[in-house]
Amino acid sequence: MADKQKTPRPKARVPRGFRDRFGAEIGRERDMLARISSVYEAFGFDPLETPAFEYTDALGKFLPDVDRPNQGVFSLQDDDEQWMSLRYDLTAPLARFVAENYDALPKPFRRYAVGPVWRNEKPGPGRFRQFTQCDADTVGAPAPHADAEMCVLFAEVIAAAGVPAGDFVIRVSSRKLVDGLFEKIGLAGAADQATRLSVMRSMDKFDRLGEAGVRLLLGPGRKDESGDFTKGVGLSDDKIASVVAFLTSADLDRDRLETIGAVLNDTPSGAAGVADLMAIRRQIPDRWKALVEINPSIIRGLEYYTGPVFEAELTFETTDDKGRPVRFGSVGGGGRYDGLVARFKGVEVPAVGISVGVSRLLAALEARGGAVAADKGPIVILALEDDQMADYQAMAAELRASGVRAEVYVGGSGMKAQLKYADKRGSPVAVIVGGDERAKGEVTIKDLARGAELSKEIGDNAAWREGKPAQISVKRADLVAEVKKIVGA
Amino acid sequence: MADKQKTPRPKARVPRGFRDRFGAEIGRERDMLARISSVYEAFGFDPLETPAFEYTDALGKFLPDVDRPNQGVFSLQDDDEQWMSLRYDLTAPLARFVAENYDALPKPFRRYAVGPVWRNEKPGPGRFRQFTQCDADTVGAPAPHADAEMCVLFAEVIAAAGVPAGDFVIRVSSRKLVDGLFEKIGLAGAADQATRLSVMRSMDKFDRLGEAGVRLLLGPGRKDESGDFTKGVGLSDDKIASVVAFLTSADLDRDRLETIGAVLNDTPSGAAGVADLMAIRRQIPDRWKALVEINPSIIRGLEYYTGPVFEAELTFETTDDKGRPVRFGSVGGGGRYDGLVARFKGVEVPAVGISVGVSRLLAALEARGGAVAADKGPIVILALEDDQMADYQAMAAELRASGVRAEVYVGGSGMKAQLKYADKRGSPVAVIVGGDERAKGEVTIKDLARGAELSKEIGDNAAWREGKPAQISVKRADLVAEVKKIVGA
Repeated sequence: MADKQKTPRPKARVPRGFRDRFGAEIGRERDMLARISSVYEAFGFDPLETPAFEYTDALGKFLPDVDRPNQGVFSLQDDDEQWMSLRYDLTAPLARFVAENYDALPKPFRRYAVGPVWRNEKPGPGRFRQFTQCDADTVGAPAPHADAEMCVLFAEVIAAAGVPAGDFVIRVSSRKLVDGLFEKIGLAGAADQATRLSVMRSMDKFDRLGEAGVRLLLGPGRKDESGDFTKGVGLSDDKIASVVAFLTSADLDRDRLETIGAVLNDTPSGAAGVADLMAIRRQIPDRWKALVEINPSIIRGLEYYTGPVFEAELTFETTDDKGRPVRFGSVGGGGRYDGLVARFKGVEVPAVGISVGVSRLLAALEARGGAVAADKGPIVILALEDDQMADYQAMAAELRASGVRAEVYVGGSGMKAQLKYADKRGSPVAVIVGGDERAKGEVTIKDLARGAELSKEIGDNAAWREGKPAQISVKRADLVAEVKKIVGA
Repeated sequence: MADKQKTPRPKARVPRGFRDRFGAEIGRERDMLARISSVYEAFGFDPLETPAFEYTDALGKFLPDVDRPNQGVFSLQDDDEQWMSLRYDLTAPLARFVAENYDALPKPFRRYAVGPVWRNEKPGPGRFRQFTQCDADTVGAPAPHADAEMCVLFAEVIAAAGVPAGDFVIRVSSRKLVDGLFEKIGLAGAADQATRLSVMRSMDKFDRLGEAGVRLLLGPGRKDESGDFTKGVGLSDDKIASVVAFLTSADLDRDRLETIGAVLNDTPSGAAGVADLMAIRRQIPDRWKALVEINPSIIRGLEYYTGPVFEAELTFETTDDKGRPVRFGSVGGGGRYDGLVARFKGVEVPAVGISVGVSRLLAALEARGGAVAADKGPIVILALEDDQMADYQAMAAELRASGVRAEVYVGGSGMKAQLKYADKRGSPVAVIVGGDERAKGEVTIKDLARGAELSKEIGDNAAWREGKPAQISVKRADLVAEVKKIVGA
């Protein structure tokens, strides 16, 4: 208290790019993660939890020649001078864990992981610097068995999250097809690595920007709606034509694998990619065949994929608040990355995994489901007499024991404020026991939801008060049964 | 690949003081957190999730005059030069959240929170720099209603976590009793703040060190078993005698409140503390009275408690691996802290909360329960013919649909390695379908648990091979039913 004058009061604010979440939103995410996790478990994956921090060198980021390595990650220096970073995904910690415990682990090693990751990026609307990832990976399994299984697992996970079959599709391609394309157009050399990466990033936007947009990105560059200009890759027209032909072969639907094969089978990588994808298609049981689609326009931006890549895409449309159609598109992705553990061990360990975009998936399901049901608040038992608190608590305990959320008001204000509190909490019912009720061995149950309806119907305030609608007095012993009648209705 | 020679391979290691967790350990914690959370929900608390970071000034740490404010917390500087720290508990973020959203929240505001917190401390055995907390708090409720409710809630939570009534007790005291003691022995002045804190820290160790140890800490100092010396507070003998008398009044059990009252009621704070605790005792319903005990030796080290303090203590004994008795003691604590939100708002907002020590509680229950049941691995379906993978996957799907964990081996090795894998995963059963079985429309089910038993019983390896024990062939259509017979048994 003495130094209150000296220290200015800090401003209470959530850090830039982060957010607080409360109540039902957390419940919905928790519920979805539980359902996804139980599919992972049913498929024989076990949970792994690594700490928030990894040593920066283990994350695979190149330590830049600056004070702090903060290119996209949050980093700090430990007491012993070692740089640590908060994990930016769940795959890099998996690679570190596998390399560290390699001999003790069963091979293949199957783990799933659920938890927050952090990105030190410029925050934007709907883009946060902390978010939840939910991954499953099989490490130590060569293609194509584990890849085909991942497609089935991905489909089961999206279905378990609440998307019916027919409203989503698992799209599959192979990084090797793209390698074949690069061989075809003469960009396969070591010197062309940066160009290849830019081309892939442009191809990855085909779904969103369409052919015209991708042509601009591959050529002179593109100005978006907001006026921001993205520098183009500067490819020649014939190379752009080949890339676009590759992407649009997706029109051919079920036969597209044969079509792509006809074009790329004279390149080594293209032929290998087609063979991988045909093996995957063969290994998928009939009941999931319709949910899995080979589609060469699936790129996945990450540099580390080495074989098949997957994307879970929602195919239903919703409308935004102006009535315009909205497609949510991708709600997760994955692929094969045979090189990741090699950074530590010097030998390649084949691995394949998927990652579910939990918040996108939740947003899509909410947009489709219309308004989400409001939070159901607890029954509030009014605290009218201080010397009866133990009895109020006992009533709340009886209600809870029968599965009803209940609390005693502990705020220390009068009856009016207590009823206002119950309204604000979304309580369906308030329980009132004052001296009169107690003398008669009764409790008064006020149906707040019904009361709100009635007060809308009855314009005349006096009549409403007179009628004391939506309020009954019952024997103390019938409290639980009567509340359950109202709450159950 | 080209710069492989230049960059040395990083060593795969979990950062110092952090740990990985895998499989059943995670399952047990998750299960306990779910049970605790559902008690919090039943009591009318809603979940709140704040980000890992808070602005350092909002955490209440005084920014030291060094490069980085890292006294006990992990801190880094954001792009806009503001210092951010990882939260070290769940209470400071709650205070920030309440201050930031004060007008919109119902009062009282009841939230619970579950999640990791980080401490930048020297790691030790069993002491990690990241661990899980699980709190419930009521903000905006004056004493004593909310305090009495917290005692009941605490008891319900410990019971829900798996500790039977009779094996734990919720101990309650009040910071005001200690204030009364300081008034009594003339240490209540502003100049004595540091001394008071040292005295409280020493008193807090009464449970562990006993009277003799605390006497040393309050007086000349104490050397522990390892030879480390803790500096003493240097109180006079008569003051030490008063403190010890205060602590040992705990012997008087049910009457101790009156005993303490007789000693401290002539101090303003002591009288207020006794009144608070008597009100709490009155407000606890009969069924929980035996679980809640007033005990003045409960201190809680934190400076910010202003009224009642709570501690959940396990009362059962277990034995360590040398057969010596072990008491786990405290598995959580809490109290009233009316000053915390004031740092932001300038006005006092009364608040009271509890925090469950999840890992201590898990460790205690495991120690008592003896060996924990081993992880139950998935059924493993052997992959013997590449062109049958779709059918193997279909079998796994049938098993999962009937609630049995199942996976197809995807590792690409031969039959012997596949059976070894199933063993390492703890699979109860392996399913074998090769060309012979397929021709007959059958599947072979190998009971691995039974097999392991038999191989122990039968010394003669040849006889064991001959007998092909614990292995049956059944019609393909009976796969699920036969596996369930074995797994259910």
